[in-house]
Amino acid sequence: MSPALLSSFATEIIIPVCAVIGIIFSLFQWVVVSRVKVTPDRNGPPSISNKNGYDDYLIEEEEGLNDHNVVSKCAEIQNAISEGSTSFLVTMYKYVGIFMVVFAFFIFVFLGSVEGFSRKSQPCTYDVSRMCKPAIATALFSTIAFLLGAITSIISGFLGMKIATYANARTTLEARKGVGKAFETAFRSGAVMGFLLAANGLLVLYIAINLFKIYYGDDWEGLFEAITGYGLGGSSMALFGRVGGGIYTKAADVGADLVGKVERNIPEDDPRNPAVIADNVGDNVGDIAGMGSDLFGSYAESSCAALVVASISSFGIEHDFTAMCYPLLVSSVGILVCLITTLFATDFFEIREVDEIQTTLKKQLIISTVLMTVGIAIVSFIALPTSFTIFNFGAQKVVHNWQLFLCVCVGLWAGLIIGFVTEYYTSNAYSPVQDVADSCRTGAATNVIFGLALGYKSVIIPIFAIAISIFVSFTFAAMYGIAVAALGMLSTIATGLAIDAYGPISDNAGGIAEMAGMSHRIRERTDALDAAGNTTAAIGKGFAIGSAALVSLALFGAFVSRAGIETVDVLTPKVFIGLIVGAMLPYWFSAMTMKSVGSAALKMVEEVRRQFNTIPGLMEGLAKPDYATCVKISTDASLKEMIPPGALVMLTPLIVGTFFGVETLSGVLAGALVSGVQVAISASNTGGAWDNAKKYIEAGASEHARTLGPKGSDPHKAAVIGDTIGDPLKDTSGPSLNILIKLMAVESLVFAPFFAAHGGLLFKIWG
Amino acid sequence: MSPALLSSFATEIIIPVCAVIGIIFSLFQWVVVSRVKVTPDRNGPPSISNKNGYDDYLIEEEEGLNDHNVVSKCAEIQNAISEGSTSFLVTMYKYVGIFMVVFAFFIFVFLGSVEGFSRKSQPCTYDVSRMCKPAIATALFSTIAFLLGAITSIISGFLGMKIATYANARTTLEARKGVGKAFETAFRSGAVMGFLLAANGLLVLYIAINLFKIYYGDDWEGLFEAITGYGLGGSSMALFGRVGGGIYTKAADVGADLVGKVERNIPEDDPRNPAVIADNVGDNVGDIAGMGSDLFGSYAESSCAALVVASISSFGIEHDFTAMCYPLLVSSVGILVCLITTLFATDFFEIREVDEIQTTLKKQLIISTVLMTVGIAIVSFIALPTSFTIFNFGAQKVVHNWQLFLCVCVGLWAGLIIGFVTEYYTSNAYSPVQDVADSCRTGAATNVIFGLALGYKSVIIPIFAIAISIFVSFTFAAMYGIAVAALGMLSTIATGLAIDAYGPISDNAGGIAEMAGMSHRIRERTDALDAAGNTTAAIGKGFAIGSAALVSLALFGAFVSRAGIETVDVLTPKVFIGLIVGAMLPYWFSAMTMKSVGSAALKMVEEVRRQFNTIPGLMEGLAKPDYATCVKISTDASLKEMIPPGALVMLTPLIVGTFFGVETLSGVLAGALVSGVQVAISASNTGGAWDNAKKYIEAGASEHARTLGPKGSDPHKAAVIGDTIGDPLKDTSGPSLNILIKLMAVESLVFAPFFAAHGGLLFKIWG
Repeated sequence: MSPALLSSFATEIIIPVCAVIGIIFSLFQWVVVSRVKVTPDRNGPPSISNKNGYDDYLIEEEEGLNDHNVVSKCAEIQNAISEGSTSFLVTMYKYVGIFMVVFAFFIFVFLGSVEGFSRKSQPCTYDVSRMCKPAIATALFSTIAFLLGAITSIISGFLGMKIATYANARTTLEARKGVGKAFETAFRSGAVMGFLLAANGLLVLYIAINLFKIYYGDDWEGLFEAITGYGLGGSSMALFGRVGGGIYTKAADVGADLVGKVERNIPEDDPRNPAVIADNVGDNVGDIAGMGSDLFGSYAESSCAALVVASISSFGIEHDFTAMCYPLLVSSVGILVCLITTLFATDFFEIREVDEIQTTLKKQLIISTVLMTVGIAIVSFIALPTSFTIFNFGAQKVVHNWQLFLCVCVGLWAGLIIGFVTEYYTSNAYSPVQDVADSCRTGAATNVIFGLALGYKSVIIPIFAIAISIFVSFTFAAMYGIAVAALGMLSTIATGLAIDAYGPISDNAGGIAEMAGMSHRIRERTDALDAAGNTTAAIGKGFAIGSAALVSLALFGAFVSRAGIETVDVLTPKVFIGLIVGAMLPYWFSAMTMKSVGSAALKMVEEVRRQFNTIPGLMEGLAKPDYATCVKISTDASLKEMIPPGALVMLTPLIVGTFFGVETLSGVLAGALVSGVQVAISASNTGGAWDNAKKYIEAGASEHARTLGPKGSDPHKAAVIGDTIGDPLKDTSGPSLNILIKLMAVESLVFAPFFAAHGGLLFKIWG
Repeated sequence: MSPALLSSFATEIIIPVCAVIGIIFSLFQWVVVSRVKVTPDRNGPPSISNKNGYDDYLIEEEEGLNDHNVVSKCAEIQNAISEGSTSFLVTMYKYVGIFMVVFAFFIFVFLGSVEGFSRKSQPCTYDVSRMCKPAIATALFSTIAFLLGAITSIISGFLGMKIATYANARTTLEARKGVGKAFETAFRSGAVMGFLLAANGLLVLYIAINLFKIYYGDDWEGLFEAITGYGLGGSSMALFGRVGGGIYTKAADVGADLVGKVERNIPEDDPRNPAVIADNVGDNVGDIAGMGSDLFGSYAESSCAALVVASISSFGIEHDFTAMCYPLLVSSVGILVCLITTLFATDFFEIREVDEIQTTLKKQLIISTVLMTVGIAIVSFIALPTSFTIFNFGAQKVVHNWQLFLCVCVGLWAGLIIGFVTEYYTSNAYSPVQDVADSCRTGAATNVIFGLALGYKSVIIPIFAIAISIFVSFTFAAMYGIAVAALGMLSTIATGLAIDAYGPISDNAGGIAEMAGMSHRIRERTDALDAAGNTTAAIGKGFAIGSAALVSLALFGAFVSRAGIETVDVLTPKVFIGLIVGAMLPYWFSAMTMKSVGSAALKMVEEVRRQFNTIPGLMEGLAKPDYATCVKISTDASLKEMIPPGALVMLTPLIVGTFFGVETLSGVLAGALVSGVQVAISASNTGGAWDNAKKYIEAGASEHARTLGPKGSDPHKAAVIGDTIGDPLKDTSGPSLNILIKLMAVESLVFAPFFAAHGGLLFKIWG
């Protein structure tokens, strides 16, 4: 086996450099965004030249550019949203912080107990002829890695929320100059989040590996076992971010819509609606912070899964540092590729018309995928030996570097396919959504039937794409192949997140425009941004679930290896009951989250109704609603309601592993994975389709659409009902399922040494 | 191993005798029902004493007992429904007949090709030291068994439909005398179907075994391999019955409701609605014929699965006929137990009040389960040796008779638990449905959100019940244990079906009362019967899916044994891709069936609207609608639309087995099973809950219910939307999924010899 072309020294330089480039680029984007001023110039008369950052606004005719009132109103709303979001996240992180400390303690105790807290070195798990660091060290470092992952996840989510609430009013203000400028602001802000998260995740992981190495030295098996705590930390924070944020955002959204749109017949985001600020806050804490934590979790976990398998493959055994870092190198190149891709949207081209938004966003996906293919090829051929061995459930399997290249590629391209299929099923440019819109003619019932059928149908191709990726990468390089395929799908995460974060920012921008009383024309522009954002949000969810599926399979494989199971035979009672119960968990979990949204929304409805009924002059726009109470209802509800589903996910692996043992736990993981993927994809696509079917009718852009409209017509009302049902499906239950399947897998992996040593109590008694 | 207490000769007598008793009992019930006359006496003036079969009607005060008009109107409507149902089923069976012949040909060719159509005896599969009959004989007998199963299934469904359409108007007429009489008529008619089906299924199977034995002699391995064709025949007919019937019934129901209830504001079953006859026909072809075929299929398959495993266990090897017939003996005793149970509902007690209906039906379940437990104990101790060996994936496992007793019991009692949980989640006597009704306050959207959450939640306990049954029976007696657990659940099938068929008969009776213009009072009685029937329908579906899960696992196990697979390891790429794609199939299938219902309903809506708009005097009740066109629309739509989902189910095992091989096919079966069960349970419970939430509001029986009503209020409208959405979920997609998972498993088992010999073409080329 010839060594890799790239020296260890070069690897040690390249990774942090790429990460730092990513951070610098994101700061640069932030500076550009910040040049849009939201504070009206208080010194002297408003002068055109210093009011907004750009000088070129004169190219487009304008309205209200000099209007102090509009600017300060936008600023005020932005502040309210930003404060609400910050206060929610801070409160949530406080609770989550307590959980984190408690769970960290558990990790330490459980893993420390594996060898009875002995501080002596022990024979290694896989290579018993060598000595490895004691289990208590792994317990300690796993705990540290867990905390690091959790903190990085929190920072990622929080910063994302911060930039989003920083950018939303700026996008609104830029919309006065034209759709192109507004798009640029929203997209650049998304890029800030995307690059910050990708670069941070990489950098922290890299630093942690290097610091842990000081203690572990040549014991890479122990080192990377401890590092998996990083993935667990990332994902457990994501759980609360997704679930808590998801309940928050949809309780507010559903509550606001039920009273505002349905009962009072006032438009979305109308400032008279008391829940409108809570709704906008929700976008930032759910879709931005939650999504950020989720994808960060996937990224961290797939890296950890790849690293832990590599550590017991020839890379780890022969201490080939460059090859060992292959997953990190792929991510590093990904940052560079995304950087170039971003320039295509912000600098190389300019958007002049509404139609171009969707195309530009789609091009981002295609460009990044094509460039990344080249990037992966380069990394694969310079960082890997031409052939090497990969640990494959007890045996070593010979793999060639071109095979690993194909593994990463198949994940990357499967992601693109999933993205496009999702777009096809959720964008109102294509027939599926148009059919759903058409079914509104006969009322809400047919709309729901067609929408559910659409969601079910939309799983077919993504599942085949995932299955093919799994087959190819599994066949070529076993679990390592799957892990790097997941990384391939996530390698363009910076671009993916930029596109993703763009959606809620535009949504908020539209809300601010409405609330600030800006003209119909501005609102039309922000609506166009938002409609494109809806589809990209669905695409983002497609990526998230696709990568989650691959990641959890990789983690599952690593768990099975670590737990010392030889086969996971479906035809043994222990495994089969795990499989069927595991397949049930996504339903249990969804029942909880949907019911939570429902109950919280009902509370919101009561409060909004109460305000409309008791605050005189509210409907006439003469009095201000009490936004704060609605914010509080969402906050309280989400904090309270996130506990049961959170407990279900966190406790299941612990209970099953401890009482039923590793075989049953394997079944549970496999069952939850194969069933959860379907529920998640269908839920988020159904929801996306309903949302866009409604938008299709509202926009009335085609002859067909106009026969269904206008706003307020019976078909439109039916479409609104579908949209409301879709809200918890697409933004709470669906996306949270990603976390369910990933988190249970990574938790099992982290606790595998404990389960292998002490698990299966019930069967030990029974048998 | 001591022989069984029961001699072979006694076994040979007991089984057919029990079957014949069942048939006689069902004929007796039919005679009782037929004593209610639906033809007004044409000779001489109507005399009270000979107008209706019973003489005791004077006990209750009456209305219209002497009214010629009402009786002849009922008779007329009954004829229309009966003709519509017969004509649909005959047309369907014609198409299905063609399919049957083609598929029979395939079975023969595929299985015959295993040994190249050689007519020489071959070494046996499991015991190579002995000689077995050639594959071509098994091909031929499998084909015959397939045709027998298919024909028995057709007869079961058809006779069920006949008795149901014979009983519906009779139930209506009896409702004039009081709710007790009406209940008795409906229940007795259900019992006709239940006993006929259980006894027929047993008898035909028994005769087939004895006839096949003439050729096979001591080659029991080949004999019972051929017999599995019986299960395949039963289930493939059930597929078309469930899917075709399901689409038929819901297209008519949804279409009728959307125009009638929502647009025209006329009550359900109003004779002015052109789709009303089609709707009533649908109940008979979907819920009666479809359900009958489905449960017959489960019954046939679980018997076959048990027999095929037994034939390669000590029973078969030692030619212990009584022990071999253990599954049939359990079913025989089941018929006797159900017979006694039925008397509790029809003879030992009498219903006097509406509230007693639900209780009586529930008692049926409890009584039959308790009695059956004793029955199973007796059979287990007299028909089985105290210990014996069971084939367990290549090895022989020692099993005691008490263990087998527990296997059957655990299935039986799991069925009861599933039944009660289903009742809890779908009956409006409990809080879940009341919460759903309450959520209608805030509109259709929250109703749908809460309903979906309820359905998801309702899978939890049934899945645990199934998992525990599987664990216990699997641990005690491997795949044989699972098969007999399924048989245990189905052992009270006669009672289960009686309860089940009771529902649509009552539904029809209500429809006839409405159409015949009978008084509000009669309608109230039939509504009460119908409401109880709704819950029992959901319970029946719970049984159907629970038994389907066990049956398909047993078949899956038999398939794995026959295909010579040693382990089905999730952690091999071939199996895992099967697993994830298999888990996707229920979604694909549901998307097809729901879309079919949606499209067919849209066509129905157009036709109904057209008739209301073009037939003068229709709304005023002065003109008759054109019922026949609506019947034709449903017929055409269901025949056309059942092909794609049918093809998906029938072709998947063939394609996967032929091209990807038995490992991938195992994955597909396991994935479809664990995912399909969840989808099926949640779909049918969600639908049942919505239906009863609507009925809860309509009945207004409690203070809470009255705050939501009356009919026509906003919450009621929201509830109607939920009900309409639930229709395809609970009566088309959900129940059809049972067939999906069972049929793929039995088909795989029948074709296992072919796949083992020639399957996996793609991997043979690839590898």
